[in-house]
Amino acid sequence: MTLTQSPAPQRSLQVALGERSYPIHIGPGLLGDATWLSPYLAGRQVMIVTNETVAPRYLARCRQGLPEGLEVEELVLPDGEATKTLESVSRIWDALLAAGFNRRCTLIALGGGVIGDMVGFAAACYQRGVAFIQVPTTLLSQVDSSVGGKTGVNHPRGKNMIGAFWQPQAVLIDTDTLLTLPSRELSAGLAEVIKYGLIRDVGFLGWLEENMTALRDLDASALTQAIERSCTIKAEIVAEDETEQGVRALLNLGHTFGHAIEAHQGYGNWLHGEAVGVGMLMAAELSQRLGWLSVAEVARTAAIIEAAGLPLLAPADMTAEDFLDRMRLDKKNVDSRLRLILLRGLGDACLHDETPSGLLTELLASFPRR
Amino acid sequence: MTLTQSPAPQRSLQVALGERSYPIHIGPGLLGDATWLSPYLAGRQVMIVTNETVAPRYLARCRQGLPEGLEVEELVLPDGEATKTLESVSRIWDALLAAGFNRRCTLIALGGGVIGDMVGFAAACYQRGVAFIQVPTTLLSQVDSSVGGKTGVNHPRGKNMIGAFWQPQAVLIDTDTLLTLPSRELSAGLAEVIKYGLIRDVGFLGWLEENMTALRDLDASALTQAIERSCTIKAEIVAEDETEQGVRALLNLGHTFGHAIEAHQGYGNWLHGEAVGVGMLMAAELSQRLGWLSVAEVARTAAIIEAAGLPLLAPADMTAEDFLDRMRLDKKNVDSRLRLILLRGLGDACLHDETPSGLLTELLASFPRR
Repeated sequence: MTLTQSPAPQRSLQVALGERSYPIHIGPGLLGDATWLSPYLAGRQVMIVTNETVAPRYLARCRQGLPEGLEVEELVLPDGEATKTLESVSRIWDALLAAGFNRRCTLIALGGGVIGDMVGFAAACYQRGVAFIQVPTTLLSQVDSSVGGKTGVNHPRGKNMIGAFWQPQAVLIDTDTLLTLPSRELSAGLAEVIKYGLIRDVGFLGWLEENMTALRDLDASALTQAIERSCTIKAEIVAEDETEQGVRALLNLGHTFGHAIEAHQGYGNWLHGEAVGVGMLMAAELSQRLGWLSVAEVARTAAIIEAAGLPLLAPADMTAEDFLDRMRLDKKNVDSRLRLILLRGLGDACLHDETPSGLLTELLASFPRR
Repeated sequence: MTLTQSPAPQRSLQVALGERSYPIHIGPGLLGDATWLSPYLAGRQVMIVTNETVAPRYLARCRQGLPEGLEVEELVLPDGEATKTLESVSRIWDALLAAGFNRRCTLIALGGGVIGDMVGFAAACYQRGVAFIQVPTTLLSQVDSSVGGKTGVNHPRGKNMIGAFWQPQAVLIDTDTLLTLPSRELSAGLAEVIKYGLIRDVGFLGWLEENMTALRDLDASALTQAIERSCTIKAEIVAEDETEQGVRALLNLGHTFGHAIEAHQGYGNWLHGEAVGVGMLMAAELSQRLGWLSVAEVARTAAIIEAAGLPLLAPADMTAEDFLDRMRLDKKNVDSRLRLILLRGLGDACLHDETPSGLLTELLASFPRR
């Protein structure tokens, strides 16, 4: 773990995927500066897609960051996970076709994970694939969903069930956008930051324990370091396993449980990061029941999740059976085998498909509820 | 041009695309024989998707060609190009989710080009990509759409506007299915066969002129040879240029004009191959106006299209402007430049974006109408 204590204003990483490689640029003031978007435009046609919450704050600044002489369209969708549907993506396709956009157009996803996932999927399938740029404006999308090319929408029967692997041309993370982020959403983003420590980097977990207050106080230096370290780990894993045949599944720590909560509670009622926080704690407790984590390590996991301002209790109205019903549809499962990401230690996640079902049911039944 | 005169019952080709390579098997009796489907199944969950016309003829036989012990689902969609919509693909996703199918499932596309395109697109986006097998039952899909991984659906504003490049695990062409194909659809398929001669193989064009009667009489040997030669040319071009950055665009000879006819007339009223036939003749005439083809070569083009039983006249109610409006949306265009596939000679197609617009408008205005 080597984080410098005084970061330069802009940091850049590379996601190494051969001819699909792309940079992640992190820093303040990227949004309105034309030097950042220009190199990644495929042609003269550009559509900025954002939502009703982000548009009044950042749409004008984003547009200002485009060079002169382009054909620029804007599309403002409703906000929220409940809008992450095929119907919303169809609205993007309709707008692209109405504008006569061709295969050399570029979509810009300006917003959080919902916008990034939908715009990426729209780009993946418009005329069989066009360019897009991720401009994530929430911590969660900056450290997770904007990197790695997972795109898609939800289906009433499951989260992200329809989608594609489609890599952006670049990810532009303007850390200034976090200054207007509601604290509940900041906490949700911190869940994914904690995840990187839990799955791969116990040193980073220690750094987070020391710096959690600074992060929640929006300390620019701490945020930049947390984002950079998170993106670095994500980029490494994605470069190893772009389409999740193996190690990439580890990024789903807490997500199998978390997706079940989100789907059961109705998308948007629990934030994704909140559900993942509880899900990571469930994974830690199950790992402890398997003899892999100590009680103290589970307590340490709970403490950092709580320090991030995240809930520790599962929804009151969800039975063990409710969890299992949703978890059986998880994309990681192979044939009828349930596969879970668990912790062999802090900073050491593994994919496990041999959890005795009694142990899992017991955990789900006894886990504290609200 | 070396076509053997007595083909073996089964022929196999390979589409060389690195780790996405796959075989094309051609011959009679493949459908009910379990040796053909089994090697290409990703797991134990299989869904056969077909349409109302094909189901009574071949669904039972296809199912019989699956090994024992699988979880098999069937989905029968309505028939016709008008059904090639996002809504139909959504029905496939709904059925997959209702059946609890996971990422290791396999879709089988049993039918013509519409089924193949939709099932391929459904496979491309279900859980970000699952396996599928093409089992084309029309000549058109056997020689063209089932090979090369172009999948997708139509949009009211344009054909194949929403889709993905997604390669099948295998293409199984049972030539017996042509015995029940209506002659109008056989002719439509022959348009794409003729296309291969026109773009890349004047020797094959000569062979087609000699064997057109045998082909239309469903001579098994002639059909097998025509399919094999067509698939070979298509596989070569796809291997060179999977995502149509260059040479693959040549496969669109006649399609820019043809798509305009299909879209203007309402999908399904003109068969795709019929529209392509007229489109190829338009391309030949425009090539002649550019000084590349002789009048005799255009006449030879018209003669082989007519011999295949295809129309030579454009729709009476389509003006030059109607054509241009539709053609401007073509996926090959870059920025606002119209790109056409034309013929520098018979068997020698090229991508051209410098056709004087006056010449094009003149051709469109003067081309014979019904």
